Amino acid sequence: MPAETHHRIERLAAHGEARIEWASRAMPVLAELGAGRIADKAFEGLRVALCLHLTAETGVLASLLGELGAEVSVAAAHPLSTQDDVAAALASRGIPTHAQRGADSIGHRQQIRDALSIRPQLVVDNSGLAIAELHDAPELLSGVLGGTLETRSGVAGLRALAESRRLAFPVIAVNEARTKHLFDNRLGTGQSVIDGILRATGRLLAGSAFVVAGYGHCGRGIAERARGMGARVFVTEVDPVRALEAAMDGYRVTTMAKAAKLGDFFCAATGSPLAIRAEHFAAMRDGAIVANAGLFDEELDLPGLDAIARPRRVRELVDEYELPSGRRISVIASGALVNLVAGEGHPSALMDLSFANLVLCLDYLARHADSLERKVYAVPDALDREIAELKLRSMGVAIDKLSRAQRARLRAPH
Amino acid sequence: MPAETHHRIERLAAHGEARIEWASRAMPVLAELGAGRIADKAFEGLRVALCLHLTAETGVLASLLGELGAEVSVAAAHPLSTQDDVAAALASRGIPTHAQRGADSIGHRQQIRDALSIRPQLVVDNSGLAIAELHDAPELLSGVLGGTLETRSGVAGLRALAESRRLAFPVIAVNEARTKHLFDNRLGTGQSVIDGILRATGRLLAGSAFVVAGYGHCGRGIAERARGMGARVFVTEVDPVRALEAAMDGYRVTTMAKAAKLGDFFCAATGSPLAIRAEHFAAMRDGAIVANAGLFDEELDLPGLDAIARPRRVRELVDEYELPSGRRISVIASGALVNLVAGEGHPSALMDLSFANLVLCLDYLARHADSLERKVYAVPDALDREIAELKLRSMGVAIDKLSRAQRARLRAPH
Amino acid sequence: MPAETHHRIERLAAHGEARIEWASRAMPVLAELGAGRIADKAFEGLRVALCLHLTAETGVLASLLGELGAEVSVAAAHPLSTQDDVAAALASRGIPTHAQRGADSIGHRQQIRDALSIRPQLVVDNSGLAIAELHDAPELLSGVLGGTLETRSGVAGLRALAESRRLAFPVIAVNEARTKHLFDNRLGTGQSVIDGILRATGRLLAGSAFVVAGYGHCGRGIAERARGMGARVFVTEVDPVRALEAAMDGYRVTTMAKAAKLGDFFCAATGSPLAIRAEHFAAMRDGAIVANAGLFDEELDLPGLDAIARPRRVRELVDEYELPSGRRISVIASGALVNLVAGEGHPSALMDLSFANLVLCLDYLARHADSLERKVYAVPDALDREIAELKLRSMGVAIDKLSRAQRARLRAPH
Amino acid sequence: MPAETHHRIERLAAHGEARIEWASRAMPVLAELGAGRIADKAFEGLRVALCLHLTAETGVLASLLGELGAEVSVAAAHPLSTQDDVAAALASRGIPTHAQRGADSIGHRQQIRDALSIRPQLVVDNSGLAIAELHDAPELLSGVLGGTLETRSGVAGLRALAESRRLAFPVIAVNEARTKHLFDNRLGTGQSVIDGILRATGRLLAGSAFVVAGYGHCGRGIAERARGMGARVFVTEVDPVRALEAAMDGYRVTTMAKAAKLGDFFCAATGSPLAIRAEHFAAMRDGAIVANAGLFDEELDLPGLDAIARPRRVRELVDEYELPSGRRISVIASGALVNLVAGEGHPSALMDLSFANLVLCLDYLARHADSLERKVYAVPDALDREIAELKLRSMGVAIDKLSRAQRARLRAPH
Repeated sequence: MPAETHHRIERLAAHGEARIEWASRAMPVLAELGAGRIADKAFEGLRVALCLHLTAETGVLASLLGELGAEVSVAAAHPLSTQDDVAAALASRGIPTHAQRGADSIGHRQQIRDALSIRPQLVVDNSGLAIAELHDAPELLSGVLGGTLETRSGVAGLRALAESRRLAFPVIAVNEARTKHLFDNRLGTGQSVIDGILRATGRLLAGSAFVVAGYGHCGRGIAERARGMGARVFVTEVDPVRALEAAMDGYRVTTMAKAAKLGDFFCAATGSPLAIRAEHFAAMRDGAIVANAGLFDEELDLPGLDAIARPRRVRELVDEYELPSGRRISVIASGALVNLVAGEGHPSALMDLSFANLVLCLDYLARHADSLERKVYAVPDALDREIAELKLRSMGVAIDKLSRAQRARLRAPH
Repeated sequence: MPAETHHRIERLAAHGEARIEWASRAMPVLAELGAGRIADKAFEGLRVALCLHLTAETGVLASLLGELGAEVSVAAAHPLSTQDDVAAALASRGIPTHAQRGADSIGHRQQIRDALSIRPQLVVDNSGLAIAELHDAPELLSGVLGGTLETRSGVAGLRALAESRRLAFPVIAVNEARTKHLFDNRLGTGQSVIDGILRATGRLLAGSAFVVAGYGHCGRGIAERARGMGARVFVTEVDPVRALEAAMDGYRVTTMAKAAKLGDFFCAATGSPLAIRAEHFAAMRDGAIVANAGLFDEELDLPGLDAIARPRRVRELVDEYELPSGRRISVIASGALVNLVAGEGHPSALMDLSFANLVLCLDYLARHADSLERKVYAVPDALDREIAELKLRSMGVAIDKLSRAQRARLRAPH
Repeated sequence: MPAETHHRIERLAAHGEARIEWASRAMPVLAELGAGRIADKAFEGLRVALCLHLTAETGVLASLLGELGAEVSVAAAHPLSTQDDVAAALASRGIPTHAQRGADSIGHRQQIRDALSIRPQLVVDNSGLAIAELHDAPELLSGVLGGTLETRSGVAGLRALAESRRLAFPVIAVNEARTKHLFDNRLGTGQSVIDGILRATGRLLAGSAFVVAGYGHCGRGIAERARGMGARVFVTEVDPVRALEAAMDGYRVTTMAKAAKLGDFFCAATGSPLAIRAEHFAAMRDGAIVANAGLFDEELDLPGLDAIARPRRVRELVDEYELPSGRRISVIASGALVNLVAGEGHPSALMDLSFANLVLCLDYLARHADSLERKVYAVPDALDREIAELKLRSMGVAIDKLSRAQRARLRAPH
Repeated sequence: MPAETHHRIERLAAHGEARIEWASRAMPVLAELGAGRIADKAFEGLRVALCLHLTAETGVLASLLGELGAEVSVAAAHPLSTQDDVAAALASRGIPTHAQRGADSIGHRQQIRDALSIRPQLVVDNSGLAIAELHDAPELLSGVLGGTLETRSGVAGLRALAESRRLAFPVIAVNEARTKHLFDNRLGTGQSVIDGILRATGRLLAGSAFVVAGYGHCGRGIAERARGMGARVFVTEVDPVRALEAAMDGYRVTTMAKAAKLGDFFCAATGSPLAIRAEHFAAMRDGAIVANAGLFDEELDLPGLDAIARPRRVRELVDEYELPSGRRISVIASGALVNLVAGEGHPSALMDLSFANLVLCLDYLARHADSLERKVYAVPDALDREIAELKLRSMGVAIDKLSRAQRARLRAPH
């Protein structure tokens, strides 16, 4: 390696180190787990492969697992969300890290394979890519004790696999923990989407019309924060109960066909492909700004948009498409996750909860591997409560406990 | 009956009729069910006993069941929530109605028995009182096909009964429908508690410190509306995950012992007894106002308060207690449900959703009685979606549908 | 007087006494003024005529002025806002009170004249009716030292009078005090309009479309609270700067012609006549609810509505008009001030600020009558600050003071 | 100039050009003024010196003035807010631009002098630095027709100058226009402070305790947005009326001494020096983050902090101070304006309003120079309304107009 390259990597790693340290400051629950809650060297002798968005918080997690005795390898869950400085820092700490921002899909798949080449006993997956890869590699599969899945998006696929008895090991669906989806998904996405849009565009939200596609936990969080910044919020949904909730929460609920004509900002968070399609882009106002906060880039039908207009890069992460009508539409981050690509992703304080779940689940898998079946498990409620208690304590918040008298009265027939 | 009494009852009934009509205007889903969705005379030959808060909306429901062919009798779920004019109107429509505002607990129990004396095949219960009464009366029990339960509070008891094989008929837990608890509990309680407190006291909420005990659906609704009226909101909880949610939602979370010293308003919504106890009353500031929105009056420990201070009625529904310290605490509606006793209860537009669930569940019970087991059932998801669709349509709100292409992509492995 | 009538009046007065006492509890600043800030017997020998909405807070004010030595008479500012029990209580305290809820306009004018028959030296006027009456009665006019005006609506008229040198005495425009209009108008109207609409209709605000006509202090307060209760808020305005503010505050700004078709609730607060006209009523949806929070009943063009539809009383304070189209529109309180007629008016805690201004202004007028000119004065800023300080202290709120060092640096050139 | 440097400057300028173009898209009112409202070549033959924050929007303004015929020179209002790419772009357009991010105070003063060396007839000043400089340079002063002042902070100084008859030319205080301070100050500061804090720290706002010092327009905007992002907001004030407003708006009002112990974030916006002092820093919790949004860096007493702790750079714009207690405090952007230094400053859509005021004021000064006195003027109300109308039109918002009948009724005595 030439000296200059070496020097550049060192600086990158130093930068990543600083960011990992900054993140760790806001992750007291994870620190607490490492400082006694989990048995010392709990993961000694275990190989753990992580396939997660490669952010500073993932750096904190990977390091903690290492400190607890695991042999860790890391691949990125999405090439555009990779923070190269964090990757460099992890590598310089001796953790094999297979990630590079901007890798193409073939390269990305290879990185996941590389991370799995340690023959993991435990696999930590974001949305199912690594678990799918393992199922295609019988030689790796046999040694796996269990895995975790971070997002809602991959759960249905794993459940189907389990039902057809093709799931090869137990998987805990971390997203179903209350301390995960009630916080990370809603609050994390809410803040980081606003952050990403502001960094990418600098545009005024107050008084704007902001369209959120999807009213699940993520969509709800985005809607809440967009309103908090002064926008008038429109919601589109396909589930009538959620649509009714959005309407009763004071948002204007309508179809995307109608919303397309009214919005200044659009953010997709449906968990489905093609939430915003060519006919919607064609109907938008001049200056409309479009972003995606859903797992799949294809929530925005950019191939459809490319078919009617040519992009021009006008800001660092903004492509402007001039439509045949002369109207100009701006797309942020090429339709990739706006909060991770244009922003820094979920705040560390929330990843603290999600990753604490993850660590406790890995510990659980390691200790109960023998007795678990090859199916998809929920996070045990007691873990959920424990994490919340640790977080409240770190915030200096005390809460009440039911007294014996209250418990007795609650059990009594009324 | 003397002419004067007769005249008074007629006026009362006319007043009740007007209120039932006013409520029915805001209940389009129920109207829609009656106008074709439910088979004409679906309940012909069935006796249905209702034990619900006797409000104008219950009047709309009872009348609809009658129109659909049922023989209906009505008892009140709580004597203080009974609206005597509605009771008179129902009686004048020929529906046996056993309810009187202010009845004592013995009288109230007798009213429930009277309502059950029609030997119902279907029983609609609020929190379990009527179902418990039936289980004490073997001569009535044998004919019951099924029942519904409206609130969360009674479900645990029924589940325990079912597990010990003592539940005598299938019961559908209506509260678990999304179109029930996400709307009625949160939004209905939210608005009607504010309404009840304002009617009872007229005090300024803006700039006040408002303490909500409990952060379930009801507590959340109250907190949201109190903040919407300009109050600073404090939340107390015993569940750490909910407490963390409240904190992250921007509320000050603390113990009741601390909150007691800080609040101007207190509202209990924990679903537990003794949420606010004598030691808390003793710590409150001069002028504090205390209300209960929980199912059990005993969320407020009024016996405990009575032991340290004497009440004096200072407004129609407000009792002021002068504590030994000289500080004065005001309790609304003697600790009974503030939204039903001081206000008019949940707005008709929300009861529309709850009662539509109820009617569809009764129809379901009537049609599937043979195949159902003696256990507690959830509301089928399809009914939930149907109700939401009907409501959205009545509001003039159109929503998107997943296209065939989207469904295909969602099913595909990713 | 027959014994029965006497007894009825006694009960009414007792009820009014209780309400005055309840109000006084939330008026600590006024109590403080009476307890030393204003010289003992400051108004000894002075006759003071009040023409104010006859609420419990006005009862507190009138009593305080009496305790400070004044000879007081009272007339109501609007016949529909009069609380007869408070009027009876004041009368039983020996204060000549000329007010009766529901008086017609001739009767109301006579009541004002009656109140002025004490030949007041000081006149406290709500919107200019009493001051106008005085200017028509030269025999009363000569003895007047000064007056105060409570609302913004009458100020322009008085300014015009002053410019043409026809104003006979100095008047202080209380509304221009920051501790008046920033609180009473915005927060008081905001809460009491919501309160009045809920009491009158019981309808659900969450998810509704709520149209506010006018975005002055009152309209802003209503919009804020309607949003706080979960409504989607529409604003109409004629001033482009205010309209832009409303838009940037996240409200949908449009014309009344468009809003008429979209709203579930309408509330006028423009300070102008004819804000909602026959063509708007004709365009409204079935079930729309219309109220007025503006000073003049004629903000709603009810004569225009009467010309196309007939009213029917459907709730205590609600008239329903069935339009030729079959759509039904409900008008609250015959278009009179919804917060005062259907609700209890501004909360005592805010009238505390407004009336504290008033008392200090009367004291100021009494002490400086000689040196004041015949024009419209603003409230001196020092009084404003003093009132805010007293209020904060009563709330237990401490604030910072600029240090000597800070003052020095602020004065220095930078 | 070496080829490499030349190339670097070209790239910088191209980058600045792109940002100026992006800003101009959101400034339709300014575009409208240039497209006919202002006479073509209105500023022909006039030299205009600008001393403004050197952002993309200032680039749009400077270019527009050039197109309207002016000879323009530019200096930065603050060396840390300068965007070097915009400065390069302006220079490459032939506009003399004297600005460099990070200049020291001597260099900065020289830049202002350089910009004034064109002997301007009109001077556009941010907070008074350029106007003060002119008053120190008699040879430049004589030719000045007038100036404008952008912020509130410098107005008092100029008023004092005018009163002592030392102000040498008329100055229009642009900040007093409603379309300036109601928007730019409140909404612009609100969004850009949140933006700046998120970019600098990435920390979670939801559930945090956020302390805002000062409740003027800027402080209010910050408080509103911090709450909108889920924070619990504390406000400190020295003005009792503003403090009372903050309390009634639902914020916790207290002294800085108390707030210092409770906050996770601190933002100063008082317009005074020393809002947050060494004793406050010393009392803060571990991890507290401190920023300044006030005009003067010295709102934060960093010399005082430096005396008790040493800074360490931990993120690009964050210095961490480890206190003797071991607690660590992070200060953003060395106490300079967080919204301009860590964020991109006020969104273009708001600078559109502020700069439209500015252009109309310059036009007014140029046309009325002869008749104006040497004092501080407000923006004429008609200009304010015109700007609001242009903005509403660009947003597609139509509003009502008072009809002749309404005007007549408003003028009539009531």
